[in-house]
Amino acid sequence: MPVVAVIGAGQLARMMQTEAIEVGQSIRLLAGATDSSAAQVAADVIIGDYTDLEDLRRAVDGADAVTFDHEHVPTEHLRTLISEGVNVQPGPDALVNAQDKLVMRKRLREIGAPVPPFAAIESVEDAEAFFDAVDGAVCLKARRGGYDGHGVWFPKDRGEVGALVAKLLEAGTPLMAEKKVTLVRELSAMVARTPSGEVAPWPVVESVQTDGICTEAVAPAPGLSEQLAQRARQLAVTIAEELGVTGVLAVELFEFEDANGQADIAVNELAMRPHNTGHWTQDGCVTSQFEQHLRAVLDYPLGSVDTTAPVTVMANVLGGDTDPAEPMGRRMAQVWQRFPQAKIHLYGKTHRPGRKIGHVNLSGDDVEQTRIDARAAAHYLVHGRWA
Amino acid sequence: MPVVAVIGAGQLARMMQTEAIEVGQSIRLLAGATDSSAAQVAADVIIGDYTDLEDLRRAVDGADAVTFDHEHVPTEHLRTLISEGVNVQPGPDALVNAQDKLVMRKRLREIGAPVPPFAAIESVEDAEAFFDAVDGAVCLKARRGGYDGHGVWFPKDRGEVGALVAKLLEAGTPLMAEKKVTLVRELSAMVARTPSGEVAPWPVVESVQTDGICTEAVAPAPGLSEQLAQRARQLAVTIAEELGVTGVLAVELFEFEDANGQADIAVNELAMRPHNTGHWTQDGCVTSQFEQHLRAVLDYPLGSVDTTAPVTVMANVLGGDTDPAEPMGRRMAQVWQRFPQAKIHLYGKTHRPGRKIGHVNLSGDDVEQTRIDARAAAHYLVHGRWA
Ligand SMILES: Nc1ncnc2c1ncn2[C@@H]1O[C@H](COP(=O)(O)OP(=O)(O)OP(=O)(O)O)[C@@H](O)[C@H]1O
Ligand SMILES: Nc1ncnc2c1ncn2[C@@H]1O[C@H](COP(=O)(O)OP(=O)(O)OP(=O)(O)O)[C@@H](O)[C@H]1O
Repeated sequence: MPVVAVIGAGQLARMMQTEAIEVGQSIRLLAGATDSSAAQVAADVIIGDYTDLEDLRRAVDGADAVTFDHEHVPTEHLRTLISEGVNVQPGPDALVNAQDKLVMRKRLREIGAPVPPFAAIESVEDAEAFFDAVDGAVCLKARRGGYDGHGVWFPKDRGEVGALVAKLLEAGTPLMAEKKVTLVRELSAMVARTPSGEVAPWPVVESVQTDGICTEAVAPAPGLSEQLAQRARQLAVTIAEELGVTGVLAVELFEFEDANGQADIAVNELAMRPHNTGHWTQDGCVTSQFEQHLRAVLDYPLGSVDTTAPVTVMANVLGGDTDPAEPMGRRMAQVWQRFPQAKIHLYGKTHRPGRKIGHVNLSGDDVEQTRIDARAAAHYLVHGRWA
Repeated sequence: MPVVAVIGAGQLARMMQTEAIEVGQSIRLLAGATDSSAAQVAADVIIGDYTDLEDLRRAVDGADAVTFDHEHVPTEHLRTLISEGVNVQPGPDALVNAQDKLVMRKRLREIGAPVPPFAAIESVEDAEAFFDAVDGAVCLKARRGGYDGHGVWFPKDRGEVGALVAKLLEAGTPLMAEKKVTLVRELSAMVARTPSGEVAPWPVVESVQTDGICTEAVAPAPGLSEQLAQRARQLAVTIAEELGVTGVLAVELFEFEDANGQADIAVNELAMRPHNTGHWTQDGCVTSQFEQHLRAVLDYPLGSVDTTAPVTVMANVLGGDTDPAEPMGRRMAQVWQRFPQAKIHLYGKTHRPGRKIGHVNLSGDDVEQTRIDARAAAHYLVHGRWA
C-alpha cells in the first residue's frame, strides 16, 4: 500500500492519520517533536526540521507522495526534492500562492478571480498613497507567515498607517495593503483536486472569525443563495485548476454588499491542505477533507461530498485564559451527557490561551439550535461550565 | 486523558485506535506481534502473550480501563488483575458467557432469553439421545474457541453424530449440541452499556453468513417488523444488564418461523466487544461501535445511535483463493471510481484465503441497490474484477 509523507505534525496531520489508518494507507510524519499532535499517535515518525533539506529527504524517502500540514516548507527545497524524483503534492508553483499574500492576489487578479483592491507596500509613501486611494479603509498584511489574524492590521488614520508601515518595514516584514471590506460575513469554499484533474467541491460554509481566529463553521452556509453558492464553488474549482493545486484547497471568502446592495464575494485567503473550515466534513459529509486530501495527493478517484445531515456546525475549542480544574475527560462527559450527538475531536495538545486544542461537530435539522448547541458544547470544553 | 489498555491487536483494536485518536484518548495495545493489524498503526504497543499474566500486567500498568479485542484472556488472570485493582471492562463474570457456548446458553435460559433446545455432550450416548430428541436436527458445537464457523458441525445421521462426537471428545474438545433451526435469516442486536448502567441499543441488522463467516450486514434489517425489532433490542439490553456486560455487546440472533408461521427470534451467540455486524456504524450512525465501546468502558455517557442514512450495507472483504495481480491500491481506485460514496476500511493484513482483510460500508436510499453495490465493491477488492 502507498505511503504518504506528511511534512508537519499538527492536528491536520493527526486527523489525516486516522483516515489513513481506516483506508489501510500508511503515513510517515516529519515532526518537530515527539509530543506534537500527530506524532503522539503515529507509528512512523521522523523527528526533524522542515527547513532542513536533509531532514526532508529522510522523511520522504520511499514515499509515494509528499504533502503538508502547513505551507512553510521552503520552495527551493521542494524544487530540489522534485528534481530528485519525489512526488510533491501540491507542488511549489501552486504552494507559493498560499505562502505569499501578494503573489496570490496578483495571480488571482490575472485569472479574473475577485479580490479586494490591493497594493504592494514597499515604503511609507506606498502605504499613504493606498490609504488615500481607498479613502482610509486600509487593511495591512504581512505577505508571509501570518496565521489566525497575526500579521493583519487595521490602522485607523494616515498617521497610524505611516508609523506602522515604517516600523514593520524596518523589522524586515514584507507588506501589502488591501482595501478593508465591509463584511456581511465570511465564507469558505473548499475543493479537492487530483493530479489527473478530477475536482470535487464541498458545499460552501459560513465561517465565523473571532479576533482573527476561526471559531465556528456552519455547513452549508445558511441563507446563501444557490446562485452565489454555485459561484463560490466554481471559483474554488477555477482557482484549483488555474493554480495547479492538488489535494484540498480552501478558499476563504468575504461576503459583502456591492454598490447595488447585492451580495457579492471576494477572495481573502488560500490554504492548500485540509482547513479548519472543513472539519465539519468529518461528521457531516460522506468523505471527510482528511480522507479526500490523502486520496487526492495519491491521485485516487475522489469520494462523494454529499452531506449526511441538513446542517452541521463545527465549533472550535480554543484554550481559555485559564485551564479549568475539571479534567478534560470529565468535561467531555458533561458535554456528552447533554448532547449525545456531539462529536468531540481533541488534538492531544496541552492548554495555552487561544490555542486550538480541539473542535466539536454537531449535526441537526435546525441551523440556529445546532449553532447554539455546538457553541455550548465547545464553551463547556473550554471553561468547564455552561455559558 | 485516560488510557485504555486493549488486549489484542486485530482489526477491532485497530478501529478502536482511530476513534481513540479523534476523541483525544490514548490506547495501549497488548499485541502478539509488531505487524499485527492494530500494532502497525499504534504508538503505544506492548508485545506479549495474552495468556501470560506478567505480559498482561505490563500492558495494563497505569491504564484507566482494560478491554479486549477478543474473548480469550484466561478468566483466572482477569480475576488476579482485578484483585490488584485493575479496572477490567467487561469483567470475567460477564466474559465467560462469550467464552463458553454452554455456560452462555444455561445462563440465557435462566434469565428467560430465547435459545434453541440444547444439551451438554459428554459422551456419544448424550449425543445420540439429543439426536433422537430433536428428530435428527442436530448442530454440534465446540464449547470454546470456535470462530467464523470453525467448531460448528451439522452431522447428517445418527452414525455421523456418534463418530464425530467420539473423535472430538477423544481430542479433548468440550462439546454441546443444539437443535438445528430452520432459519429465515440471521440478525444481530447490538447494545453498549456502561458500568453505571446506561444502555444504548443500535438498530437491529440483518447479517448474512456464508460458510459460517459473516459476509454482509444490512442496517436496519430490511422488512423486520417494528415489534420484532423492538423485542430484539430489548433482548440485547436485558442480556447486557443481567450478565453485567460493559462495553459493546453483540447478540447474534436466528430469525425463524414458529409453529404458527410467525416470525420469532432466538439467541445464537454473544460477543462482548465491537463485532463484525456493527462495522456499518462507522459510516451509517452518529456514534460508531468503536467510539461507543471506548466511551462505555471508561464510563462516559454514551453517544447517539441515530442513523445517518436510510440504509447502510457492510460487505466484508475476505481474501480470495488467490491474491489478484492488481495491487490493492489500484483495486481501491477502481471501486472508488465506480462508487464515490463507498467507504473502504482495510486492516493492514496480508492476503490469505478467507481471511478478513477489510470491509466496505455503503449508504443509500434503496436496500436492494445498496446491497448490490456494496457486494460489487467488496467483490472487486477481493478479486480485482467485477462480478
Ligand atoms: N480586507 C479585509 N477587509 C476586512 N476584514 C479583513 C480583511 N482582511 C482580513 N480581514 C479580517 O481579518 C481576519 C484575518 O485575516 P486573514 O485571513 O488574512 O489572516 P490570517 O492570519 O491569514 O488568517 P487565517 O489563519 O484564517 O488564514 C479575516 O478573517 C477577516 O475577519
Ligand atoms: N442451531 C443452529 N441452527 C442452524 N444454523 C446454525 C445453528 N448454529 C449455528 N448455525 C449456523 O452456523 C453459523 C456459525 O455458527 P456460530 O455463530 O455458532 O459459530 P461461530 O464460529 O461462533 O461464529 P461467529 O464467529 O460468527 O460467532 C451460524 O452463523 C449459522 O449460520
